[in-house]
Amino acid sequence: MEFFQQYDKLLSEDELGHVQCAREFCEGAFSEAVFAAHLAGEAVPVEWVRKWAATGMLGLQARRAHGGHEASYMCKIRVAQEMARHGFAAAFCLNHHQGGVTRLSQTGTAAQTEHLLPPAMRGELLLTTAMSEPGGGSDVSALTTTAMPVVGGWSLNGAKAWLTNGMVVDGLIVLARVPDAAGGNDIASFYVPLGEAGTFRRREIVVPGARSFRLAEIFFTDHFVPEWGQVASSGAALKASMASVNSARVHVAAMCVATLQASLSEAVAYCEGRQAFGMPLVGHQGLRWELAEVSVRLEAANSLVFRAVEQIQIGVNPVRLAAQAKKFAVDTAIWGIDQCVRILGATGASAAHRLNMHFAEVRMAAYADGTNEMLLDRIGRGLPSGYRN
Amino acid sequence: MEFFQQYDKLLSEDELGHVQCAREFCEGAFSEAVFAAHLAGEAVPVEWVRKWAATGMLGLQARRAHGGHEASYMCKIRVAQEMARHGFAAAFCLNHHQGGVTRLSQTGTAAQTEHLLPPAMRGELLLTTAMSEPGGGSDVSALTTTAMPVVGGWSLNGAKAWLTNGMVVDGLIVLARVPDAAGGNDIASFYVPLGEAGTFRRREIVVPGARSFRLAEIFFTDHFVPEWGQVASSGAALKASMASVNSARVHVAAMCVATLQASLSEAVAYCEGRQAFGMPLVGHQGLRWELAEVSVRLEAANSLVFRAVEQIQIGVNPVRLAAQAKKFAVDTAIWGIDQCVRILGATGASAAHRLNMHFAEVRMAAYADGTNEMLLDRIGRGLPSGYRN
Amino acid sequence: MEFFQQYDKLLSEDELGHVQCAREFCEGAFSEAVFAAHLAGEAVPVEWVRKWAATGMLGLQARRAHGGHEASYMCKIRVAQEMARHGFAAAFCLNHHQGGVTRLSQTGTAAQTEHLLPPAMRGELLLTTAMSEPGGGSDVSALTTTAMPVVGGWSLNGAKAWLTNGMVVDGLIVLARVPDAAGGNDIASFYVPLGEAGTFRRREIVVPGARSFRLAEIFFTDHFVPEWGQVASSGAALKASMASVNSARVHVAAMCVATLQASLSEAVAYCEGRQAFGMPLVGHQGLRWELAEVSVRLEAANSLVFRAVEQIQIGVNPVRLAAQAKKFAVDTAIWGIDQCVRILGATGASAAHRLNMHFAEVRMAAYADGTNEMLLDRIGRGLPSGYRN
Amino acid sequence: MEFFQQYDKLLSEDELGHVQCAREFCEGAFSEAVFAAHLAGEAVPVEWVRKWAATGMLGLQARRAHGGHEASYMCKIRVAQEMARHGFAAAFCLNHHQGGVTRLSQTGTAAQTEHLLPPAMRGELLLTTAMSEPGGGSDVSALTTTAMPVVGGWSLNGAKAWLTNGMVVDGLIVLARVPDAAGGNDIASFYVPLGEAGTFRRREIVVPGARSFRLAEIFFTDHFVPEWGQVASSGAALKASMASVNSARVHVAAMCVATLQASLSEAVAYCEGRQAFGMPLVGHQGLRWELAEVSVRLEAANSLVFRAVEQIQIGVNPVRLAAQAKKFAVDTAIWGIDQCVRILGATGASAAHRLNMHFAEVRMAAYADGTNEMLLDRIGRGLPSGYRN
Repeated sequence: MEFFQQYDKLLSEDELGHVQCAREFCEGAFSEAVFAAHLAGEAVPVEWVRKWAATGMLGLQARRAHGGHEASYMCKIRVAQEMARHGFAAAFCLNHHQGGVTRLSQTGTAAQTEHLLPPAMRGELLLTTAMSEPGGGSDVSALTTTAMPVVGGWSLNGAKAWLTNGMVVDGLIVLARVPDAAGGNDIASFYVPLGEAGTFRRREIVVPGARSFRLAEIFFTDHFVPEWGQVASSGAALKASMASVNSARVHVAAMCVATLQASLSEAVAYCEGRQAFGMPLVGHQGLRWELAEVSVRLEAANSLVFRAVEQIQIGVNPVRLAAQAKKFAVDTAIWGIDQCVRILGATGASAAHRLNMHFAEVRMAAYADGTNEMLLDRIGRGLPSGYRN
Repeated sequence: MEFFQQYDKLLSEDELGHVQCAREFCEGAFSEAVFAAHLAGEAVPVEWVRKWAATGMLGLQARRAHGGHEASYMCKIRVAQEMARHGFAAAFCLNHHQGGVTRLSQTGTAAQTEHLLPPAMRGELLLTTAMSEPGGGSDVSALTTTAMPVVGGWSLNGAKAWLTNGMVVDGLIVLARVPDAAGGNDIASFYVPLGEAGTFRRREIVVPGARSFRLAEIFFTDHFVPEWGQVASSGAALKASMASVNSARVHVAAMCVATLQASLSEAVAYCEGRQAFGMPLVGHQGLRWELAEVSVRLEAANSLVFRAVEQIQIGVNPVRLAAQAKKFAVDTAIWGIDQCVRILGATGASAAHRLNMHFAEVRMAAYADGTNEMLLDRIGRGLPSGYRN
Repeated sequence: MEFFQQYDKLLSEDELGHVQCAREFCEGAFSEAVFAAHLAGEAVPVEWVRKWAATGMLGLQARRAHGGHEASYMCKIRVAQEMARHGFAAAFCLNHHQGGVTRLSQTGTAAQTEHLLPPAMRGELLLTTAMSEPGGGSDVSALTTTAMPVVGGWSLNGAKAWLTNGMVVDGLIVLARVPDAAGGNDIASFYVPLGEAGTFRRREIVVPGARSFRLAEIFFTDHFVPEWGQVASSGAALKASMASVNSARVHVAAMCVATLQASLSEAVAYCEGRQAFGMPLVGHQGLRWELAEVSVRLEAANSLVFRAVEQIQIGVNPVRLAAQAKKFAVDTAIWGIDQCVRILGATGASAAHRLNMHFAEVRMAAYADGTNEMLLDRIGRGLPSGYRN
Repeated sequence: MEFFQQYDKLLSEDELGHVQCAREFCEGAFSEAVFAAHLAGEAVPVEWVRKWAATGMLGLQARRAHGGHEASYMCKIRVAQEMARHGFAAAFCLNHHQGGVTRLSQTGTAAQTEHLLPPAMRGELLLTTAMSEPGGGSDVSALTTTAMPVVGGWSLNGAKAWLTNGMVVDGLIVLARVPDAAGGNDIASFYVPLGEAGTFRRREIVVPGARSFRLAEIFFTDHFVPEWGQVASSGAALKASMASVNSARVHVAAMCVATLQASLSEAVAYCEGRQAFGMPLVGHQGLRWELAEVSVRLEAANSLVFRAVEQIQIGVNPVRLAAQAKKFAVDTAIWGIDQCVRILGATGASAAHRLNMHFAEVRMAAYADGTNEMLLDRIGRGLPSGYRN
């Protein structure tokens, strides 16, 4: 697609094939299923993870030794964009689980890889990360979940919130406080298999119009974590989770751009086809200018995000640029889809129109991997070194 | 409440009593019921119309001879605002039905009054107006519903969309084309009792997060309308519906202001109570400025709406001012509640917080009684006479 | 004028006469002189102060015993608005001097009144207030000007900046640090006659397009202030200057509204008269919507400002409301005049069009009596008590 | 400079040398001269064209055979950006003249090249283009200037407005109506030497704060144009001027980005150095967020403009993208510099601060090579083909 040509000309033949595969998968029954679920006020059926797994795409970035494709970051971005054009939440959830698979394949221990990777790549064992807590938002210093050493592993107590896929997930990557040598505590991370209920409990976080995120809180009471579940030891966990945040931000930003591009296309088509006061809507100058302005900012967002993607692709970790790209792409997508919704009149506001779904879902992008306020603070700290005459 | 003091000092003792009655009714179980319904993804139970009726408030503007209070426009506005502070959609629906009662009492024929008014005032027979059609939006010239004369009345064919309370309504005020003497057609209006199913069919228009509007389309096939149902004869119907549009616009605007005022108050309270990074949220200057800016525009909206209310109260029909007040109040409420939602972080985006309900519901205000685009056109036509040096 | 009718119906017959007098004074040669000066890149000739004085209007709020009119705050506002419709800076300067006259008449000592009032009311001795300093902006705690007691008075050292009328002023009301009993220092205020040069020096602060403010810095070196010049003693000066800040803010806000109203009227007239692409500019829907939106926010600003004026008129000191009104009116005027300028195309950007003058001048309103940032801080502090459910 | 690295890594060694040359030229006395002129309310002295010529840079894109460098479009962009960082108007004027040199060298006839190129490359004969007319704005169909054939050439009558460098220009490229064979008329273009006064007259168009554009109207009365002056014959002139408009739009956009980047850098430095209320301005979170947001949109504009530049560099004529890039870059620069101005408080609003100059000058970018309204219309027409699902 011409809109994404900057990206596509940097992909290999194989990678273009993956993008093509994603496009074909999404355009058919997947797209319809996502929208049908929205209409019914439900999440898209979880079986779609397994259907996606069947194409082999969950291993997009996994090692070839594990049956993966070892595709590049930019390829992952494009696959996510093809998906996000049909439904931001469904795309976000599939990509979130896929990220867990990638991490397992690339950095998991032998035991972790053995226990988790095969079912995860088949879409039978769903993974998610768990940082935020009900009372603490994004302030890591307020983290209260604890993992205490017990025979053969750890005992987990506390609660995690805003879990992607939380209602159906089978394993979590959890940040928790552990006792340190000095009698204080530090933060470590664990793979936490959920298994049979009993020591944990889920509660859905309902976001009207955006149920496909399947957001949930999970509460742990003396929940057992086997020894092989430890991912990062005391001290290294926070650093590890910070290292990946920039590529995660750009990932979200790139999906926002794709969802906005699809939304604008739908609005333009609608305005060509619908008559009012004796001419097609697109014939009304006021509306046409509004659509044109959406396209202006969409192109700006796309260009900025591409630049950030390109940096990550070549191995740079662009802290400030990633934050700027996410801030701008999220703001632009929310504003732009809202404009599209309004241009359609009341029609756009009902669940029966896909723009309604796009608007509700893309709003949640503002909270993933750094709120606007956190991003502005991050950017603000870098201003003096970044902008000098 | 100090915020509404401009209004309240122009009300009579009796009217202040009605406002007080509304405030007390809303603050208790009603407020909880509205929010519980939102959490469950449902509409607020229809029984609340009857509970409200039991206070006698459905007759707020009905004639004393009919058991009403003959309260003024400004009193109606204040009552609606007290309600809208707890839930915009629930308030909108109650007020919409109440407007039907008022119209019946003030302008209904004897037969209409006799058949409809007592059960309507008891909240047992719900009324709504029906102008828009599925394919035509707000372009009246595209109206296609027809009413053909038959023995003892009329036969109705066509469909109406975006009906407030449409899923539970018992009687509609319908605009339809009727044959005229010259062999062409004109537009008349009718009270249309629905009665038993058979010649009509409903379909819900789902608006995620705003189910309490109970929006629906209703399709008519040879639906019988009794002779006494005619409201405005051929030629007068459009004029009548235009005459009331200015006060309706200001009404919606006033409710938007009230919902925003409640939202800002909730956001301020939240930011006082919640800690992040070592101090209450309200201690962060960036957030505090954002809240302050919401208050600035809220006060502007309130002042503008009050001025329009005041004009209508003294008998002026302020065409341009009503359009300006609705445009500004709706834009400000949607923007302002969105700001409040975002300031709360992800918490504000979940159904578990009332701000999420306010945001979803108040967005629909943009479509009631004139979209932004129609308002700008209306205002634009009046500029040369309104602004001259 | 209909736009200001909310105000005018609260004025007395005499006061309406003053407004009428101002309108007639401004519409003729004054308006032309203001604009001719702008075209030439100069300040409006200072003789216009004397012409205005000749109408007796400099004593608008002075005591009758001093030959004044004892007009109300609302009357002053309306007079300032009539003037601001022709030129914000010229109006601001005349009003600033007039405020000095009012203060002298109402609170001056016998000696001050005797020395200063007669020539001030004749427009021969111009007065201004002097708080800000070159290095300190609006942070009063950073004030460095000193007044040390000497025989017969005080000796002033330091510098004041951003002085309205600073290039032509004859007397200043200066805040300065004075020694206190404890060996520290406190802040007092003085009338400072400038007299012959020698111990003071002026430097113009050039604001392109807005020279009529005649902004200047004045530097004092051992400048003598006679004993009778002390206005507020140590400790009371800051309190006194704070007490008047709310009415000053609303005053500026009201002038902004008037300048925007005149600007919109000019833009509408221009768009009616000018053809492009085969029809008048006002026939292009996109432009018409832009003009309509300006009118929407103008009416909101006017309504909000009126409410603040009304509060002050009845003796309330509306701290939060005054800050909100100024923030909104200034932002709206700058934005709205900018829209008008742009709608005119390049024409609006040249000095040959009055909108260019209005835009340059009204931007300075953002700095008078509290910047946006100070206002947001002030409003933010009042949020918890002002907005409660 | 890191900010422009996307561009610079695509330039040749020679081209990087030109950019370096421009940077060094600008940072010294040129930058001071531009600002000193602004302070004095005057245009930068015209001698700076000759100083710039002395570096050989006026022939940046001229043919080597003519003594030029044959540099690429992207190199021209970067040179213009280095200049625009010190003064948008001065850069615009130098670049406008340089564009005339480039066109002469690349497409001029032998006679034109002989008469005009050597003095033009020395900066002794200044060139400009002349399309707009006093009454007609950007509507070419309203063009009224005429060129009638006379012995040895043409006789020109009419007026041209908004001429860059118009107060000092020596030769114009003029669009004018000429008689056609059918007795009607068509549009042709001419090099028009001005020579001694007598048959033409100039009038300055004053833009306060932006005198360095030296904008003027020029009126022609039977002004003689020699035969060799014809550039495009009847019919081809409009097409030729349209062909270059996309690269011109991107050129303006790229300069806007550079001026904003310089402005943000100045604002950041100011906020680091200035204290208020006990800490540097940059320590106030509200201000820091405002600066951060400016950087976000600046990066978006830079990325979008770069993409358009890249397209032109490889020979694509990106009609829609050029319009989008100009719309976004101009809007962002005006908004962003305004934010920077305000963040500095009143200081930023005075001529004594370079941000004041940047703001006044960059506003004029909105009118060069297509107003926002024309751009939105152009973009709007391309939406259906550009955005399709």
